[in-house]
Amino acid sequence: MSILAVGSIAFDTVATPSGRAQDLLGGSATYFALAASYFTQVRIVAVVGEDFADQHEKVLKNRGVDTRGIQHAKGKTFRWGGQYLDNLNEAKTEYTELNVFEKFQPQIPEPYLDSRFLFLGNIHPALQAAVRFKLDGVPFTGGDTMNFWIQRTPKELAETLKLMNVLLINDAEAKMLTNEKSLPRAARKVLAMGPEALVVKHGEYGATIFFREGAFGIGTHPFRAPALPIEEVIDPTGAGDSFAGGFMGYIASQGQLNREVLKRALFYGGVMGSFAVERFGTERLQWLTRQEIDARFQIFRELTHLE
Amino acid sequence: MSILAVGSIAFDTVATPSGRAQDLLGGSATYFALAASYFTQVRIVAVVGEDFADQHEKVLKNRGVDTRGIQHAKGKTFRWGGQYLDNLNEAKTEYTELNVFEKFQPQIPEPYLDSRFLFLGNIHPALQAAVRFKLDGVPFTGGDTMNFWIQRTPKELAETLKLMNVLLINDAEAKMLTNEKSLPRAARKVLAMGPEALVVKHGEYGATIFFREGAFGIGTHPFRAPALPIEEVIDPTGAGDSFAGGFMGYIASQGQLNREVLKRALFYGGVMGSFAVERFGTERLQWLTRQEIDARFQIFRELTHLE
Repeated sequence: MSILAVGSIAFDTVATPSGRAQDLLGGSATYFALAASYFTQVRIVAVVGEDFADQHEKVLKNRGVDTRGIQHAKGKTFRWGGQYLDNLNEAKTEYTELNVFEKFQPQIPEPYLDSRFLFLGNIHPALQAAVRFKLDGVPFTGGDTMNFWIQRTPKELAETLKLMNVLLINDAEAKMLTNEKSLPRAARKVLAMGPEALVVKHGEYGATIFFREGAFGIGTHPFRAPALPIEEVIDPTGAGDSFAGGFMGYIASQGQLNREVLKRALFYGGVMGSFAVERFGTERLQWLTRQEIDARFQIFRELTHLE
Repeated sequence: MSILAVGSIAFDTVATPSGRAQDLLGGSATYFALAASYFTQVRIVAVVGEDFADQHEKVLKNRGVDTRGIQHAKGKTFRWGGQYLDNLNEAKTEYTELNVFEKFQPQIPEPYLDSRFLFLGNIHPALQAAVRFKLDGVPFTGGDTMNFWIQRTPKELAETLKLMNVLLINDAEAKMLTNEKSLPRAARKVLAMGPEALVVKHGEYGATIFFREGAFGIGTHPFRAPALPIEEVIDPTGAGDSFAGGFMGYIASQGQLNREVLKRALFYGGVMGSFAVERFGTERLQWLTRQEIDARFQIFRELTHLE
């Protein structure tokens, strides 16, 4: 079933131990949409500037992504520059030019309104909430946020969290959001704020999903998916959004919503994140096959599976 | 089959967010022996001072540990003080008094010489090697080391690594030992230095075992075991040594040595580490039952097991 994804489209310039690359097509909506496109129909809502050309839109269209929700504005597309020279796990931002993204007001095309799944990429929580309200009745909403919104707009964020079925963030964000040092305790607090499930991404150590008691089935045990030990991470940019795309895309492709589906989705999230970092930008996400994806899913399984 | 463990016995004074505790019986050999004692017969070689009383030895004897290899020397037992107030994942050492440990020369009692498994706790690599040579022909040796020996005694350590079947260290140690930032690449280098398998402990994120090609079966894929998300870690001291005890103890309890056994051992390592941190010192490791251990093993399985 269709997923609507709202987020950013950007041109990224990155430096990593493997080299440098300029003006790569990126942004949370781009990575998410490409990763999710291997599982389900994806519709995208984002804003671009005059420097966003047909060749860029084609990257999304080639994967069957519905791009009618891309808004074209006067000016330049959002640009970000960063490097991972000392630490592949954390980007050092060199510059952020919001450009057209600064005044982004998401518009939902009428044909998108029947979407059954919604992903709220990392934008202002008030905009996330506005989109969610326009999709009144959407059965399943996932979302992301970051330290910037946790610190600057805590009230708006608290309201938006009530509208999400699952929140996907990293360890540091979960702890910052709840002012807790222990991850399981942070998770319990997040689940009390609204979401029925919380996915915490641990980078090279995988991810954990925590369930609110009674949500998606019985039990309170969390579940962990590994990450693949990768010898050479070429470019970590977009790994988290690709994870979200694999996670949400797999869920949307299933006829039902239960813990087993969410657990498998956690594995597929790791799989798509592992592909994303193997090349600069979105290159690796453009030409995958479902067979390659499922073969890697098997490798992830074997990574933690006891006879 | 019997394991001989050589390492330290210490009195630890720790401060954690849960409180303070003084003069706790600790040390690598103590934690290792208690954890391994639930799986197999353990023999211990270590040195203590005049402050080591019957009540301390009883902690080990109550678990059936053979203490004939404990050497009694004039002076005080090794003492360590540290705190985890800011970060439960890393101890801040407040003091280290080596005392009798400074001149420790491991002596192997004659009845220990038929041990089929050997664990070389974190002591000077030249002493580790000397013990290994005295147990000429021991079929399986595991060992530990730390940043101190990696930096101060790299040549001796390189020689000792050739004598180990499996090395158990953490992420930072693996990277320091090989001068690599990527863990899988660090692992490949370690395996080229001697050990057939490398266990890298990730703290709250579990552990990974890397196999040298052809060792313990076919294939080159690593394997990951999760750690249990624990709401309140009372005292992290000894978690790594308890992990090693569970890992080696389980291996010694099995009639064969293959990848499946090593994978299960990695889970049992995590299980024993998770118990260790639930109380101050060795308290939690003194009164477990095999049933409790196997129940937690099941929880660990479910933590990553897909239908």
